[in-house]
Amino acid sequence: MTNQRKPRGPYRKSAQRREQILQAAYEAVDEYGERASLHDIAARVGVTQPALTYYFPTRDELLIAVLERWDVQGRALAGASGEDQSMIDGMVAGTRHTTDHPGLAKLFVTLSAAATDPESPAHGFFAERYRTLAAEVTRDVEEKQRAGAIRADEPAEHLARAVIAVLNGLQLQWMHDPAVDMAAIAETFTRMLAPPGGTGGAQEPEQPPIGP
Amino acid sequence: MTNQRKPRGPYRKSAQRREQILQAAYEAVDEYGERASLHDIAARVGVTQPALTYYFPTRDELLIAVLERWDVQGRALAGASGEDQSMIDGMVAGTRHTTDHPGLAKLFVTLSAAATDPESPAHGFFAERYRTLAAEVTRDVEEKQRAGAIRADEPAEHLARAVIAVLNGLQLQWMHDPAVDMAAIAETFTRMLAPPGGTGGAQEPEQPPIGP
Repeated sequence: MTNQRKPRGPYRKSAQRREQILQAAYEAVDEYGERASLHDIAARVGVTQPALTYYFPTRDELLIAVLERWDVQGRALAGASGEDQSMIDGMVAGTRHTTDHPGLAKLFVTLSAAATDPESPAHGFFAERYRTLAAEVTRDVEEKQRAGAIRADEPAEHLARAVIAVLNGLQLQWMHDPAVDMAAIAETFTRMLAPPGGTGGAQEPEQPPIGP
Repeated sequence: MTNQRKPRGPYRKSAQRREQILQAAYEAVDEYGERASLHDIAARVGVTQPALTYYFPTRDELLIAVLERWDVQGRALAGASGEDQSMIDGMVAGTRHTTDHPGLAKLFVTLSAAATDPESPAHGFFAERYRTLAAEVTRDVEEKQRAGAIRADEPAEHLARAVIAVLNGLQLQWMHDPAVDMAAIAETFTRMLAPPGGTGGAQEPEQPPIGP
């Protein structure tokens, strides 16, 4: 991934070492969450802690790199459902990305909240991340509105930001109570994205209406 | 508020002092967010820091009390729209509760994220808070489903948890980018709660459909 131009010699070795450290950090956070120690990460790769800080000068830089990787994987997972699929697959994949990796999900929420402070080292990463994500999801919603698969009576950007908000908010609820069924609630939400009136390729609800 | 039984003498004085400290902490957090200092809070009341810790032994206990107060006010604001109103008023009031008090909103998100850790001092508060809130909003949704104001083709609890998730998630996006129009997106979301087909007292969208 980091060797797009296939460099050789010392640089390649350096890039490989960086990649090893990043992967070890990813696995350590996946396992222990925010408590993953630099000591443990260095030990996994077989380097000293000073060697580790040569590649990632601060703990925050390493954690942000871990989150970037997690984010890329999450988008790949959501995108793997393909252009012609409903948004349901992407959202359910998004919830699975959370529930399968609680350590990473927790780090994401904690850092994301702390990063609203402009002085936080992760501030730039998250500000850019939300901007890019909102733009991407908005384009996706626009396409699906044109195809009649998503309601076109509301602005695409509002729907896109609501999608992102629901996933973030459900993640928070699930972290406080693992019994919260994120995937089922996300499915309810995707059905609310269908055009009102139930035409135009909208999915019919599978759950029976609940009565008084 | 804390004197429901109108105690007299020393206890009443003690309760008043506690209330003064809590109110000062509330105002300090409202103004400076999480950076509000105990020193500043004590100075606002005119007590020493040790006196302050007599009432709130730890900083966390004081911050949780501040958030409880903020939460109570938020619910009062949302509830003030009344039984016979649409959910729009409640949700828009909820977004205003955030945008009018960024310091408190930020503290809420940061502590809420940190409190997913069972060892966090705020863990119990937030776990209970989400449970209670989800139950309350679910009851509200059930009533509105019976009245035909909210779609009854999805489980009330799913809709309720989606409402809470959208508000939390939008708050996070808004804190990263104050240009995000929380109120407008919340309004889009409330229209998605309307029964599909547009009957049964649902509000018609005010915004024109956006085309390709």
